[in-house]
Amino acid sequence: MSTALVLLADGFEELEAVTIIDVLRRAGVSVTSASLGGKVVQGSHAIRIEADALFEDVFVDTFDALVLPGGPASRTLREDARVQDTIRRMAVTGKVVAAVCAAPTALDTAGVLTGRRATAYPGERLATALYVEDRVVEDGNFVTSRGPGTSLDFALTLVAKLEGKARAQATAERLLATNFTT
Amino acid sequence: MSTALVLLADGFEELEAVTIIDVLRRAGVSVTSASLGGKVVQGSHAIRIEADALFEDVFVDTFDALVLPGGPASRTLREDARVQDTIRRMAVTGKVVAAVCAAPTALDTAGVLTGRRATAYPGERLATALYVEDRVVEDGNFVTSRGPGTSLDFALTLVAKLEGKARAQATAERLLATNFTT
Repeated sequence: MSTALVLLADGFEELEAVTIIDVLRRAGVSVTSASLGGKVVQGSHAIRIEADALFEDVFVDTFDALVLPGGPASRTLREDARVQDTIRRMAVTGKVVAAVCAAPTALDTAGVLTGRRATAYPGERLATALYVEDRVVEDGNFVTSRGPGTSLDFALTLVAKLEGKARAQATAERLLATNFTT
Repeated sequence: MSTALVLLADGFEELEAVTIIDVLRRAGVSVTSASLGGKVVQGSHAIRIEADALFEDVFVDTFDALVLPGGPASRTLREDARVQDTIRRMAVTGKVVAAVCAAPTALDTAGVLTGRRATAYPGERLATALYVEDRVVEDGNFVTSRGPGTSLDFALTLVAKLEGKARAQATAERLLATNFTT
């Protein structure tokens, strides 16, 4: 069973975060949501979620994937030294590093996207990446995507990467995610 | 500003519930999530959400729409007399009554779908409705949909119904929900 760490800071985009956690768990991935603040985290549309753990209590090296939902919380992901360090550490050790919406900017700031194909929400700037406008972009172990409307495809792409294409296809069918193809 | 009441019981489908609340709030609808149990409600994939209110503290007659997410919580929606009474009361007074995934079975049980076109998650039986396999089905003030993968279209259809097609189209564009058409 693969494992994924999803980081939540106040102002996270709820649809994106919950789609990621829900879909990965449906597919059999062990997901831990970790808060960068208190146990209860408030999203950008006033939805309050209880994180599984506090960030300071998780051991990041045990996870196969790091996933960053977007929203105004992306600013925290760019500015929090612990997050920036975690991104670099996961990238260097060959883990899956993924971000959606405005959150790919935190990968950019961490310096792990240099020369790689990546995407983000329209208008968000990636200084070091080769910006692509596809809904989901994979380059090596990096997966980036564009926004709430692309989050289901993003999550299913992560399932394919962590658990294989057959699992992703079966999960897509159960979700009635008819547009997804691996 | 229109208002929507979203009912949460333990075992609710998180992706569906959060997509509905997030998208309606983005579109300017005033949404209240109300728990049928305690203040914190646990979904079917172990995501815990703090509801805005307890069901017993909301005055249902003030809402323009009732929206029921699916998941195993649908059983509670069918069996809780308060919910069944609310469904009938909203239907009789011409409010928007909407459900997704397994939750349309609660509308069926309440007896408000008789002779109406409706849909549900594959395999869920609607005894009284005319079962249709479209992703989102509208019939009068009733809106039903099929599952997690159709929830974005379902939520945007509710935006169109409550705030108009232009608002729904603008919301879809900001979400990058490229498949939605009003």
